[in-house]
Parts: sequence; structure tokens; C-alpha cells
Amino acid sequence: MGRWEADAAGRFRAAAMELFGEIGYEQTTVAAIAARAGLTARTFFRHFADKREVLFDGSARLQQLMVASVSGTPAEASPLDAVAAALLKSGEFFDDERRPFARLRNHIIAAHPDLHERELIKLATLSAALTAALRERGVDEPDASLVAETGIAVFRIAFAQWVAESETRGYAEIVNQSLARLKALAAH
Amino acid sequence: MGRWEADAAGRFRAAAMELFGEIGYEQTTVAAIAARAGLTARTFFRHFADKREVLFDGSARLQQLMVASVSGTPAEASPLDAVAAALLKSGEFFDDERRPFARLRNHIIAAHPDLHERELIKLATLSAALTAALRERGVDEPDASLVAETGIAVFRIAFAQWVAESETRGYAEIVNQSLARLKALAAH
Repeated sequence: MGRWEADAAGRFRAAAMELFGEIGYEQTTVAAIAARAGLTARTFFRHFADKREVLFDGSARLQQLMVASVSGTPAEASPLDAVAAALLKSGEFFDDERRPFARLRNHIIAAHPDLHERELIKLATLSAALTAALRERGVDEPDASLVAETGIAVFRIAFAQWVAESETRGYAEIVNQSLARLKALAAH
Repeated sequence: MGRWEADAAGRFRAAAMELFGEIGYEQTTVAAIAARAGLTARTFFRHFADKREVLFDGSARLQQLMVASVSGTPAEASPLDAVAAALLKSGEFFDDERRPFARLRNHIIAAHPDLHERELIKLATLSAALTAALRERGVDEPDASLVAETGIAVFRIAFAQWVAESETRGYAEIVNQSLARLKALAAH
């Protein structure tokens, strides 16, 4: 994808999120997104299958980033430390500049059962990918699945805190605190 | 629901699972389930919304059982111990007599994305119910969510092992071993 096209995807994404916030997800059409972005609907469909995909097109990149992090963690790191490193790496997606976008996305998903289902599927897919990456590191079952699923649990809970309206802590701080709580809770 | 009706639900369930195993889930109609059960389709729809519900009608009872177990665990038990007790309590559903049914159900769900989605939603609902039960015990957030989600992770992984073709260990043994592994993995 050339620079211009990558920029088009970003313009569609920004336009869609603006409209989702202004007039609601249901009411937003692809035609309106394209008009707001100053591009055509035809170009929209070269980047996204439908308006729903605007909310989920980061998932594949997030998964790549986290899997690469698990694979790239030094061999002597424990399975949980490898997943913890991947969780912290995912913070590249979740900086303070993106928090308003993430909050709006979260509201939309919570209000639409079909989007919530899709989010659950994406997380299950991410968990399976982390499990596979741990197995490649030589972690046997059921440990690989247990650590990956536990990591996803921490991810969900840390993310939910990060997008909460009154939250001011950064994503990495929340992840580290959640991991520390998990360890403390598992010790009792 | 009277004794006769409870029995009707059981007859429909047994007939449906037989047909799912013999001719496949897709090919099985409500009419065929009713005929096999020696009852009418009209009676079927008094018990189940559709054939899909035959696979999921245990979820509400499972959730009730596990929530009651969390609530009924002595106050001095740790959050994780309360969830561990609920996981072991769920073993009432998963005895060796039901393992062939559970295996067949698992195959059907794995082969149908819409059923897999429904399973993910049921597990998310169960996790939320366990979180609420922990909060009632005075467990604050994020601990309540972390422990509930971790418990669901153990549940999924233990259940997947229990229904694996070559598995001979009982459900309670697998749950206890998974919990022990989780504690060991979280300590490193």
C-alpha cells in the first residue's frame, strides 16, 4: 500500500470516528464517511469491508505486535514474563492521544451486541496466537494456554480501566499494576 | 415445570444429540428431533427456542450453581479459593457419564462459527456473574474482575482437556491440576 493509500485509510478512520461521535454509529453511512473524508465510497471499500471494520482494523496489527514480542523475549524469561512484555508492547497502540478514540470505540461496542461478539472473537483469536507463540518458545500445554488466557484476562481488565472516563493513569502503569495484583491474588 | 415436562426436555435433548451425532447438526431438523423423541415439534418449542438452544440450555444452571458456590464459600476464603470452589462445584455438570455428550457438543461448536460466538458470549456472561458475586463478598476492583476472568481461563482450559479424545482424568482432577499450574506460573 502506497503512502497515499495509507493516508486514505487514516482519513476514513478519523472521519468515521468523528461521525460515530456526532450522529451515532447506527446513523453513520459509508457515503457520509467518504464525504467527510473528502474521498469516494469506492475508495472506502478498497480499505474496509464495511463501517464495522473501521473499529476492528487495528486488531491484526495488535496481534502481530504482541506475537512478535512474545517470540522476541529472551529465552530465559518465564512464560508469564514473555506475555507481560507483549502486554506492555501493546501500549504502543494505547497512548494518551488515542484514549478519546478508544473511549468512543468502547461505548459503541458496548451498545451493539454484534460488535461485542466480534470483540470477543478477536480476543479469542489473540489468545490462540499468543498460545501458539508460547508453544514455539517450548512452553508445553496446558501452561501455554493458561498463561495466554491469563494474559488476555489482564489485557481486558487493564484496557477497561484505561478507557474508563475518570482514569488518568497511563496504559503501561495500569498493566503493571494489574499484573502485580494477579500475582498477589494467585499466591493466596 | 412438572415432572412430565422436565422429562420431555430431557427426551428432546437426548434425541437431538443422537441425531447430531448420526446425521450432523446442520442436517438435523426440529421435526426429526421431535419424531425421535416421540413428541411433537410444538412441544419442542415449549422447551427450546430452536435446535441451537439444545446445546446451550445448561448454561444458565451452570452459572447459578457457580455463583451460589462463590457466595456460599466461607468469608475467610481468598477470592481465588472462592472461584476455585465454584470451578469444582461445576463438576456436578461434568461427570464421566456426560463426557460423550460434552465431546460431541464440543465438536459441533468448533465446526460452527455462530455457535462458537455464542459459547464466547456465554463465558463472558459467566465471568461477569462471577465478578458480581465476588464484589458482593467485598472484593474490590480490579481484583474481582481479575480473579473471575482468571477462573474462566482455568475453566476453559480444564474443560478443553476434559473433552479431549484421549483424556481419562476426571474433571475435578484436571481443574485442581490447572489451578496448581496457574499458581506456579504466576509465581515466576
